[in-house]
Amino acid sequence: MTEHKSASFLDRTLKNLRRGWQAIAGSSYGEEAASTRPDLPEDDAHQLLVQMRDCLENKGGDVSSRVRAAALGRVYLNLDSVGREKFLRLMAENFGVDDSAVEQAIGDFRRAADSDQRLGAQVALKGALQAPWRKLLTQFNALPEGVKFLVDLRAELMPLARKDAAFKAMDSDLKDILASWFDVDFLELRQIAWDSASAALLEKLIAYEAVHAIDGWEDLKNRLDSDRRCFGFFHPRMPDEPLIFVEVALVNGISGDVQVLLDTSAPSVDPLSADTAIFYSISNAQRGLAGISFGNFLIKRVVEELSAEFPNLKTFSTLSPIPGFRKWLDATVADGEPNLFTAEERRALNAACGRKGGAKGSLVSVLAMPDWHTNAAICEALKGPLTRLAARYLAQEKRAGDRARDPVAHFHLSNGARLERLNWLGDRSEKGMAQAAGLMVNYLYDLGRIEANHEAYTSAGAVDLSSGVKSLLKT
Amino acid sequence: MTEHKSASFLDRTLKNLRRGWQAIAGSSYGEEAASTRPDLPEDDAHQLLVQMRDCLENKGGDVSSRVRAAALGRVYLNLDSVGREKFLRLMAENFGVDDSAVEQAIGDFRRAADSDQRLGAQVALKGALQAPWRKLLTQFNALPEGVKFLVDLRAELMPLARKDAAFKAMDSDLKDILASWFDVDFLELRQIAWDSASAALLEKLIAYEAVHAIDGWEDLKNRLDSDRRCFGFFHPRMPDEPLIFVEVALVNGISGDVQVLLDTSAPSVDPLSADTAIFYSISNAQRGLAGISFGNFLIKRVVEELSAEFPNLKTFSTLSPIPGFRKWLDATVADGEPNLFTAEERRALNAACGRKGGAKGSLVSVLAMPDWHTNAAICEALKGPLTRLAARYLAQEKRAGDRARDPVAHFHLSNGARLERLNWLGDRSEKGMAQAAGLMVNYLYDLGRIEANHEAYTSAGAVDLSSGVKSLLKT
Amino acid sequence: MTEHKSASFLDRTLKNLRRGWQAIAGSSYGEEAASTRPDLPEDDAHQLLVQMRDCLENKGGDVSSRVRAAALGRVYLNLDSVGREKFLRLMAENFGVDDSAVEQAIGDFRRAADSDQRLGAQVALKGALQAPWRKLLTQFNALPEGVKFLVDLRAELMPLARKDAAFKAMDSDLKDILASWFDVDFLELRQIAWDSASAALLEKLIAYEAVHAIDGWEDLKNRLDSDRRCFGFFHPRMPDEPLIFVEVALVNGISGDVQVLLDTSAPSVDPLSADTAIFYSISNAQRGLAGISFGNFLIKRVVEELSAEFPNLKTFSTLSPIPGFRKWLDATVADGEPNLFTAEERRALNAACGRKGGAKGSLVSVLAMPDWHTNAAICEALKGPLTRLAARYLAQEKRAGDRARDPVAHFHLSNGARLERLNWLGDRSEKGMAQAAGLMVNYLYDLGRIEANHEAYTSAGAVDLSSGVKSLLKT
Amino acid sequence: MTEHKSASFLDRTLKNLRRGWQAIAGSSYGEEAASTRPDLPEDDAHQLLVQMRDCLENKGGDVSSRVRAAALGRVYLNLDSVGREKFLRLMAENFGVDDSAVEQAIGDFRRAADSDQRLGAQVALKGALQAPWRKLLTQFNALPEGVKFLVDLRAELMPLARKDAAFKAMDSDLKDILASWFDVDFLELRQIAWDSASAALLEKLIAYEAVHAIDGWEDLKNRLDSDRRCFGFFHPRMPDEPLIFVEVALVNGISGDVQVLLDTSAPSVDPLSADTAIFYSISNAQRGLAGISFGNFLIKRVVEELSAEFPNLKTFSTLSPIPGFRKWLDATVADGEPNLFTAEERRALNAACGRKGGAKGSLVSVLAMPDWHTNAAICEALKGPLTRLAARYLAQEKRAGDRARDPVAHFHLSNGARLERLNWLGDRSEKGMAQAAGLMVNYLYDLGRIEANHEAYTSAGAVDLSSGVKSLLKT
Repeated sequence: MTEHKSASFLDRTLKNLRRGWQAIAGSSYGEEAASTRPDLPEDDAHQLLVQMRDCLENKGGDVSSRVRAAALGRVYLNLDSVGREKFLRLMAENFGVDDSAVEQAIGDFRRAADSDQRLGAQVALKGALQAPWRKLLTQFNALPEGVKFLVDLRAELMPLARKDAAFKAMDSDLKDILASWFDVDFLELRQIAWDSASAALLEKLIAYEAVHAIDGWEDLKNRLDSDRRCFGFFHPRMPDEPLIFVEVALVNGISGDVQVLLDTSAPSVDPLSADTAIFYSISNAQRGLAGISFGNFLIKRVVEELSAEFPNLKTFSTLSPIPGFRKWLDATVADGEPNLFTAEERRALNAACGRKGGAKGSLVSVLAMPDWHTNAAICEALKGPLTRLAARYLAQEKRAGDRARDPVAHFHLSNGARLERLNWLGDRSEKGMAQAAGLMVNYLYDLGRIEANHEAYTSAGAVDLSSGVKSLLKT
Repeated sequence: MTEHKSASFLDRTLKNLRRGWQAIAGSSYGEEAASTRPDLPEDDAHQLLVQMRDCLENKGGDVSSRVRAAALGRVYLNLDSVGREKFLRLMAENFGVDDSAVEQAIGDFRRAADSDQRLGAQVALKGALQAPWRKLLTQFNALPEGVKFLVDLRAELMPLARKDAAFKAMDSDLKDILASWFDVDFLELRQIAWDSASAALLEKLIAYEAVHAIDGWEDLKNRLDSDRRCFGFFHPRMPDEPLIFVEVALVNGISGDVQVLLDTSAPSVDPLSADTAIFYSISNAQRGLAGISFGNFLIKRVVEELSAEFPNLKTFSTLSPIPGFRKWLDATVADGEPNLFTAEERRALNAACGRKGGAKGSLVSVLAMPDWHTNAAICEALKGPLTRLAARYLAQEKRAGDRARDPVAHFHLSNGARLERLNWLGDRSEKGMAQAAGLMVNYLYDLGRIEANHEAYTSAGAVDLSSGVKSLLKT
Repeated sequence: MTEHKSASFLDRTLKNLRRGWQAIAGSSYGEEAASTRPDLPEDDAHQLLVQMRDCLENKGGDVSSRVRAAALGRVYLNLDSVGREKFLRLMAENFGVDDSAVEQAIGDFRRAADSDQRLGAQVALKGALQAPWRKLLTQFNALPEGVKFLVDLRAELMPLARKDAAFKAMDSDLKDILASWFDVDFLELRQIAWDSASAALLEKLIAYEAVHAIDGWEDLKNRLDSDRRCFGFFHPRMPDEPLIFVEVALVNGISGDVQVLLDTSAPSVDPLSADTAIFYSISNAQRGLAGISFGNFLIKRVVEELSAEFPNLKTFSTLSPIPGFRKWLDATVADGEPNLFTAEERRALNAACGRKGGAKGSLVSVLAMPDWHTNAAICEALKGPLTRLAARYLAQEKRAGDRARDPVAHFHLSNGARLERLNWLGDRSEKGMAQAAGLMVNYLYDLGRIEANHEAYTSAGAVDLSSGVKSLLKT
Repeated sequence: MTEHKSASFLDRTLKNLRRGWQAIAGSSYGEEAASTRPDLPEDDAHQLLVQMRDCLENKGGDVSSRVRAAALGRVYLNLDSVGREKFLRLMAENFGVDDSAVEQAIGDFRRAADSDQRLGAQVALKGALQAPWRKLLTQFNALPEGVKFLVDLRAELMPLARKDAAFKAMDSDLKDILASWFDVDFLELRQIAWDSASAALLEKLIAYEAVHAIDGWEDLKNRLDSDRRCFGFFHPRMPDEPLIFVEVALVNGISGDVQVLLDTSAPSVDPLSADTAIFYSISNAQRGLAGISFGNFLIKRVVEELSAEFPNLKTFSTLSPIPGFRKWLDATVADGEPNLFTAEERRALNAACGRKGGAKGSLVSVLAMPDWHTNAAICEALKGPLTRLAARYLAQEKRAGDRARDPVAHFHLSNGARLERLNWLGDRSEKGMAQAAGLMVNYLYDLGRIEANHEAYTSAGAVDLSSGVKSLLKT
């Protein structure tokens, strides 16, 4: 719902008006959209407020109230960003919780004489804490694509809430509503395939892919080839919008190099003979659903789907980026740290850099060199120390609450995965070099250990490590 | 979810276990269903409580928690009515709101120094008022037919809540959850037709019809004939369960006799030439959704559908029962009331009854005679007074809040309909005679007046009356 | 397309006019239906002939020709049986093969100088043998339910062709067209289930069931229970009309008693534990497809479907009637035949009948007694001889071409089944007693032997016999 | 089924083997595919012949015969082009019509004594003219994508038939089979849209577009924009393969410039306000269906669909190429022809060319100049004469049977369209300049005149001309 996106969304909305409550009411409620000016000046705002009140008071009955809410939603869609902030502020300032009513309810609650009265007072207090804007928000669902409208509305409300407390409570309520509607058991797991998905949906994959950018239709087609799978969660009322999607490669043995996986000229593997499924990209597609998480469910449902389709699969693993590695490295690893290099590695690095002239020994300065990964000698020299550092970063560096410092690591470890293998130069793209000096990591999902791993990690921050990673940590 | 229904629902549930979270976990969570005894003795209850706690603590992670909730749901299905009450009591007594936490939050709220703190404390107070059982209830959605499970669960919880306050707050929370999930804009309006609906769905119409009982498949087929329509609202996760449905006859002129409408041997009307749609039966199908109302929406959506399919339709009216008429009549109308009869009516009644012997003049005693409606003279004598009384009952008798005393009247009047016409001997079935002395009524939906009617009725109890009804009230 | 059926089919046709070629043309072609009199008197017939010619000459182009054909089809539907015969005769007499053109083509063919000329002349001769009515028939496909129209047309043409040679060639051509359109690989195998099939389709099962009549909806529901399956073949353009359907019971061990299978009060078997699938009824549903056979394909596809759904199934067998047994018995088995009875059986029969008085020994006269099967002594006496006679009838009695005399036996034996077991009093219904003295038979489909059995039977009439049946034949 | 396409088709076929007859038979029939060598040497050919015979003799029964046919089809798919020709020759030489049987049948036919015998002999003669390969061809339908297989087979058979008479009769039979299966009333008209069509289907549009090449996904998306429509005919058994498709632009007034229509940067028109639908591209997608025409039907069905969706549309017109114009011009128009130019045009041309140096006056030599259309003076000079010549070419130049010389003109004129308008420089692409000196033409579909136009054109070659075109012809 940026200016650009909202324009086309609006177009669709206004064009594709499915039959709904809109048609039931006379035409009167549809007029505001046309007459309200984009920046919502004072007069228009006043009129809008009247409309909002009418809607909340259920004027004309339930059906009319829905129609009115849809009309308000269309007004919103026609506003520019200034007008939209004013619209939301109108709601936030006029239809929040009534503090005096809360005080009154608290008084009744405290005065309650017996458990029965107490129960009644509790319910009344809960009621007093419900802001009227909840009803307004809920009824925007009457728009033809009402659920998407609300998801996008939240994407616009969130940055406002970060900078202005007035919007916080409303954002929190909207998140509650969406969390209820997007209960994971309402979602549909769907395979997204070249043979069945519409071009309109596939375009969205290109737009939403957040890990390894999709470079046009050929790249996309390659990711949906016979030895690939893509799955997403969808909401029944947003059938053309993935909420989250994962891309999987069917291979033999655990992959360590994402360039190989994404190579459009590589031959296909026979998926029926593959023994390993590599989850190499997971992207959240809806900013407005921030804080409502599906990733854990998605991975496990997809493991299940793949197991059913390909009985030969034995191993389920990710090939993941390490987004925070370089930042941590630059910020916290002193070049003088005693055990960064073995003596031999130090010699090799000096030799390699000496030939290039200068920069002897400083890890950070070597990493700052452009295209260092194309220099075989430097690579040889850095492989050991960087891999060990990455293992240490992933396995041992924590932030508050015993959470892994790396956000991707935290996600998979809290899902119960094992830290399986570091992959030297697994991602040589610009982004991969900048974020993680080209390193990638595999998190392994072993269904038999997932629960125990989750418990150990959540309760004490303990990380399940493969023997390979353990070795890296010892040296 | 009576004993009988739950058995077959259970059967379906256990047999049709679609792929879901169940399959992801190992088999361990499924065992309780088998081992828990139907009446839930102490030991089993204890074990269940542990499971519930594990589920609430998210032990093993999000996915495991859902699996555990589904297992708990299956335990419930296997219990008898004694066991089920114990199960619900376990939840009600162990996972309600923590009063001390509420007190603490109230304290914080009152101590809040500025509006920012106040806002935070408000959110915290709302949180403290959320009972943990909410999460348990929500997660039962992980069952293959989880939504239906919860609807049926509420149908069993409601009578308990009426007799025992311990269940009241839980019932209120469950109603909240369902109200959010059954937001009317999530529902699908579907035509239910002989050519497309499954036999399993049609069977449910027979079972759920609440106004004019459906007497087998021939009767049903007649109600789905070419000059009839049946529509229902459905939830996407309960595709084979109507929530509410309405039966409509396409006719010429407003119908006044339901026996004529239901006559299976009557010839069909050409629906394209019909000018009137008669809504002759509306039935709520899910007891567990009591208090969440769809009827108003259904009628108006159906008006819209019919208008699109049959442009010739000019009039939309119900043919409705008057369920409370006789009860009111017997209780409140004194036979000696001066203006019940005209002199001529009084004479006619005496003559009619004199021929039958005795019972002179007493309205109540005549109505108590078996099959009086087969006596033409009595009918002739009673038509005037009873029709006037019914008009008075519907238009003028109120209960608290200016609501019409008759529940069906209240429903249609608050929807904005007009009280159009009384129909003498419109329903001569046993039920029709017992409830309303055979009288029926038409409520007319005139789209142009609906909003104004709704406002007048809701704000002041004013009823829109046709000139015919007005005349009845004058005499 | 009897009077009665055609009326309702016509209704549907005229009402449900889907958008099609009809709408493209102006309204002119639709007029005839209204103006043509039902018995097609001379004048109307003449006009019709002009229309047919226009259609064949493609007047107005391809699209107009289709529209015209549809209009002709509607005329046909509006005729009574007299009119319909005249309509078909018009076609048969005016649009058959032109004999002189055939003679001409034969001449050219014989004069052909070389293989190239010969090939051309062959094609020309084939062309000359194509009657113009083929094009008319084909284009009736332009009717909204054109395929069903042609199937029903053939059902009406067949009896005419039997009594009047003028219709024979046209019937043969129509059969050719239908055989091409109903190629078995165009058909869809669909399960017909209580939960998914429409009431309109299920009604047709009741109407079309040809082996064991379905006695209302309860009986039908029982046949679609969890331990039953029903499958049919459907054509994509006749989605609501089964072509043929089979009813299957999932049981343990081979069933021998159809009353037990059809008992609505019997408890369900757990289908997942069943080891045997019993095909107890196969019905062709479309008379107009006579001579185009699907049964063989249906059985084997269903075996495959069931094997996939129920891996425990080991045995696939029919429980079949023996429709020609009594007729054969009465006509050809002399009571004096020496080996009909063992001495003991003869004694037992005399004793049993003696007690009843008279009729000593004559098999035929005993079988003529009403309700003899309720007399245990008679049953005991007849079991041996009748079972042996039935085995002999099924295994050894032939008609021309080494075909089994019994039509059901011929069907299954030519499909490669084995004659497995005779079942004494397997069908005690009136029909079962009249056709086969209550005997039923199992034909076993053993996939490993089907091809060899088929070959042996088709080439030499050899029947695969179980050891049990062999024993019966020896005595 | 070129080498390249067939490879991927084969892949799909072998991978996606849906459940079918294949699974029923044991594995034995599947073996040949693996063991037959791609170029089908003598030994393999011999074995194949045996298989073909077994299939024709129905060895093992109907079902086995289908399985065998599918196995033969898979063998074919695995062959290279040499092997495939041998495969087809095996069929052509071994399973054609038996000449002696034909002679015999002719004899019987001539000897027939009465009309009854004659009828029987006629049927027998028709039978004798049916080559056995028909059955083989038909049964290839047992392949999972059997219909597509046969369509592609014919695409490979057609060039063989052109060079070798041995294949001609088989090609003619295959065309017959396909013509029956692809009866236009079996086809589904489907809209092909960006929001609903799969990427796999859309890729085929790019591949099959035959008029104005689609330059990648952006170009395609533009052709499926909100003011565009694309429709195709599909066969139910080839759901992902369009048979023919048409691209339509919704505009105001008749378009004369295809570059404007295809401009991806042009703004969209509001389709609801458009008054004209321009059919600017019609492509046949299946070479194997050559000679079975759908275009006439497609255009009229699409006119109907569009009329229903957009009631504002008043005019339906093509914007068509004139593929044969330059060829005719170069071959038959003498530069010295007296009336090619008016005196003024001649002067203008000389002036324009004089400035360029040389080439005075010769039309052909000017047209041979590269990029002449970028020279405004030349364009101005040529516009008159070329437009008049094109009108003459389209309206008056005929080939045998009074057919328009230009194939596109013949198609639309025989459909009943009117020759409406010539468009100067309507297609300035390389192809447009080479084929038609940049000229394009509109054919107008006026539903009220279509039939009369068709009749006039088919019977006498008369062309319906707009007044504008008539003026061009007069000068």
